[in-house]
Amino acid sequence: MKDCLLVLSGGLDSTTMLYEYQSRIAKAVSFHYGSNHNDKEIACAALHCKRLGIEHQVIRLPFFKDVLHSSLLSGADAIPEGHYADENMHSTVVPFRNGIMLSIAAAMAEDSGLQYVMLANHSGDHAIYPDCRPEFVGAMSKAIEAGTYNGVQLWAPYTNITKADICRHGKALGIDYSETWSCYKGEDKHCGRCGTCVERREALAAAGINDTTEYQE
Amino acid sequence: MKDCLLVLSGGLDSTTMLYEYQSRIAKAVSFHYGSNHNDKEIACAALHCKRLGIEHQVIRLPFFKDVLHSSLLSGADAIPEGHYADENMHSTVVPFRNGIMLSIAAAMAEDSGLQYVMLANHSGDHAIYPDCRPEFVGAMSKAIEAGTYNGVQLWAPYTNITKADICRHGKALGIDYSETWSCYKGEDKHCGRCGTCVERREALAAAGINDTTEYQE
Repeated sequence: MKDCLLVLSGGLDSTTMLYEYQSRIAKAVSFHYGSNHNDKEIACAALHCKRLGIEHQVIRLPFFKDVLHSSLLSGADAIPEGHYADENMHSTVVPFRNGIMLSIAAAMAEDSGLQYVMLANHSGDHAIYPDCRPEFVGAMSKAIEAGTYNGVQLWAPYTNITKADICRHGKALGIDYSETWSCYKGEDKHCGRCGTCVERREALAAAGINDTTEYQE
Repeated sequence: MKDCLLVLSGGLDSTTMLYEYQSRIAKAVSFHYGSNHNDKEIACAALHCKRLGIEHQVIRLPFFKDVLHSSLLSGADAIPEGHYADENMHSTVVPFRNGIMLSIAAAMAEDSGLQYVMLANHSGDHAIYPDCRPEFVGAMSKAIEAGTYNGVQLWAPYTNITKADICRHGKALGIDYSETWSCYKGEDKHCGRCGTCVERREALAAAGINDTTEYQE
């Protein structure tokens, strides 16, 4: 039964979720909020939805740049390099980004008669991003359930597993991760040095996947 | 101490809150989501913020019309007439509209270092709009608190009073309600017959206010 709407960035995590739960996913939605890497990741999201025959909608949120501040919204040069868990990655936080995306996805699910909104947050996100933590996901699910006629709920099955675990799921599913996008800089190729590139490389290596991503170095 | 961001439509309820809590409100935000009456109500919101010297931001959400369905987004002729509490007013529900607006306001509050997002929902909204009910407001406040570094919270002091009570507050404050906009049709003058016009007239009358709003009839 197709009763889910997936928030799909086109990155490694949500793309894995798209393939793993394709029998449940009626629709996927991607958000273009003015980050350097949105065009790159949304192109990947569109490719996978087309391949699987899943309806894909792209929503533009141009106001992000007008009212919110983050290095993610400030051009490639503003993106810090280093490890994903390091303090300098704090500059990439976009305030309550998941809250906004989940609210819009919940409205779309209610509008379409779908029961669940799926999100591919994972345990490695918890340290830096408060709106990826289990407490947030649980409270947000209750808010959405209370605020919709259909009692729409969140479903975030990767909340307590790691990015390497997600890659292991993807490996079993035969996903080609070179068809996903992570790099926050959003240039021609993955930079290989920003926090999300470092995290990507480590997770693929930990899962024993031959990483065919083209990196700048 | 100015530690609040108000979601201000320019209608009767949020305008009263703007005046009543002006000493706490650092900023107000209005959303243009493609409803017939957004232009009219946002012009009122801007007028009051200018008068009180409160910063006012307008955020456009053009995607509402693309992905959500409601008579409120379908032109003046689609708006039903009758009592606000009647079943026909269900067509004016915009799925999870408050959830979306509150999420964006929460992001802005976090970005600006403000502690509270204020919402002017009241007890008369509960029947029709699930995202105006106390259960929703409480759960959404917990979600926002968990999902922000600053632990932003919702503050909705009109949740358990009626629209007539709000008008009594406004009467004591000397608010001229002809400088607020309610009518969902959004034509030159208030139609006087749609659900929100009927509710407005009843509340002003119950508070003993001489209603100087220009109605079409």
